[in-house]
Amino acid sequence: MDMVQAVLSGDRLSLARLLTLVENDMSAGREALDGSFGHTGRAHRVGVTGAPGCGKSSLVNQMVRAIRHPCEGELAQRVAIVCVDPSSPFSGGALLGDRIRMRDVAGDSGVFIRSMASRGALGGLARKTAAVVDVLDAAGFDCIVIETVGTGQAEVDIAHLAHSTLVIEAPGMGDEIQANKAGILEIADILVINKADLPAADNTERVLKEALHLGYVSKEGWIPPILRTVALDGTGIDELIGAIRQHRQYLHTSGGWEQRERIRLKFELDVLLQCELFSRWQHQVPEEAIQAVNDRLYNRQISPFQAADELLFLDGVIRPTFPPSVPR
Amino acid sequence: MDMVQAVLSGDRLSLARLLTLVENDMSAGREALDGSFGHTGRAHRVGVTGAPGCGKSSLVNQMVRAIRHPCEGELAQRVAIVCVDPSSPFSGGALLGDRIRMRDVAGDSGVFIRSMASRGALGGLARKTAAVVDVLDAAGFDCIVIETVGTGQAEVDIAHLAHSTLVIEAPGMGDEIQANKAGILEIADILVINKADLPAADNTERVLKEALHLGYVSKEGWIPPILRTVALDGTGIDELIGAIRQHRQYLHTSGGWEQRERIRLKFELDVLLQCELFSRWQHQVPEEAIQAVNDRLYNRQISPFQAADELLFLDGVIRPTFPPSVPR
Repeated sequence: MDMVQAVLSGDRLSLARLLTLVENDMSAGREALDGSFGHTGRAHRVGVTGAPGCGKSSLVNQMVRAIRHPCEGELAQRVAIVCVDPSSPFSGGALLGDRIRMRDVAGDSGVFIRSMASRGALGGLARKTAAVVDVLDAAGFDCIVIETVGTGQAEVDIAHLAHSTLVIEAPGMGDEIQANKAGILEIADILVINKADLPAADNTERVLKEALHLGYVSKEGWIPPILRTVALDGTGIDELIGAIRQHRQYLHTSGGWEQRERIRLKFELDVLLQCELFSRWQHQVPEEAIQAVNDRLYNRQISPFQAADELLFLDGVIRPTFPPSVPR
Repeated sequence: MDMVQAVLSGDRLSLARLLTLVENDMSAGREALDGSFGHTGRAHRVGVTGAPGCGKSSLVNQMVRAIRHPCEGELAQRVAIVCVDPSSPFSGGALLGDRIRMRDVAGDSGVFIRSMASRGALGGLARKTAAVVDVLDAAGFDCIVIETVGTGQAEVDIAHLAHSTLVIEAPGMGDEIQANKAGILEIADILVINKADLPAADNTERVLKEALHLGYVSKEGWIPPILRTVALDGTGIDELIGAIRQHRQYLHTSGGWEQRERIRLKFELDVLLQCELFSRWQHQVPEEAIQAVNDRLYNRQISPFQAADELLFLDGVIRPTFPPSVPR
């Protein structure tokens, strides 16, 4: 519990160590999370997603700078950034991009940056990201920015972890984007056109507006604003911070905050259950039995469904009490 | 079994219907897959991935055209394209992009296009994509192109489904790409610089070469070639098709084909087991019990780990026989 106390009192080294324990699935990390979970629930979790090349990292840097140096007597909030890169084999906060960022905020104890990456078990990254964000929440950061690289399933999963999701676009990012807008728009609370000084920005805004009008209805009545920024010179950053605060306020008054907290925690628990069930099952079934079924699958003697059925039959405990799961 | 026979004999309407059954987890789809799985294993599965804006779709179109109209007396292969978009809510082959594509290949019975999208259960998309590709394999397509939108976890998952993976880059796609190259390069069997007529192409090639030299060692001794294409006018497409054929040949002579088939099928089975275990568990535990635990989690009375433990205890059947899974 020493470590938990140190983290709760703001010790950065203990925090970094605890996050490593959590990422590596160590029991000490789990115990620390159990011991500190009661302190979570205060941080505003802000998801930031967008395709590579949209200037996401520069924008997050500017956002953090603005949050740390607020105008007109507002309190500077403590900010943590969790950078999630599902395609990278590196983890633990030592990415090149982080080091470049660190220069901007070196010596600022109100900023903490952590990189997450993992290409292991299915659901592993979402599960670990959730745990890392929980620890940072307990550690007292007011705002936690969850930045994801890419535009795939991981981003949608990670939107489950955020209260407010920013989707970043850049002008002229290619034809295929338009056809795919609808999906990514569904997770957006705030749309940002970065590099808005480029001539194609007007067209991007038009496309976004059309896509919004086409199908988007927010479940809680919030209409996602479309903002323009230029991360390189800071244009539009104050407005963006304002919109993020407004969305937070909106969630609190509309009941959306509670709703998203419930969805997020249920998602977090489901991922954990799924990983845990598989892991426990693996421990229970002899490896040779799994190998034998895989061999028969490879030789096309059985289909994947038949292979799964056989393996789930193997431990006589589970099967008989379950109703058939197909069709649902 | 009528449907399976129709699909095996090349009936496109039956194929489309069967794929819908498979995507919707209908028992008839499952039975058809069980009945046709013995016919799989012949198709060359080619994964194509790359960030939005790199011209992936145009490139795939050109590839398909070249495969359908081969030079110098080679046989035209039958090609299926599976387009996977984890961020899109649409599914079933009616995306805008598909309709544009269809124009190019309208009336060519040797080409089949299918779009996949789903943002439901964890692992759901990977599981369904695997099943859809298996059906297309059984249906006798010589080459199945699995195209993914985005650059996240889904792409890495889908690399597991392919024998040969193409990673597409376009010149000048932004600074953050360089730092993240290492991860995506690990899944690449062939690197393609599309839009190679742009002046920045030389720089992209330099960056890719450096990244390759930095850390990449192919497990099977294959060194990924770096190719240049211009999808819009067809430049470099024949060379690309040649490289794909070469990689297939290489896999067959090196034993890599067998190895990848085993890895792919094991991955497919693991995803299925994970989904099935969770689904069966959900059927077994009363909904009110799950809700009660979720309430206590929301009120911070228990942590996610403690919540998972409690829920897995609930069905007295499972827990006692399992060893503790943390730490591993």
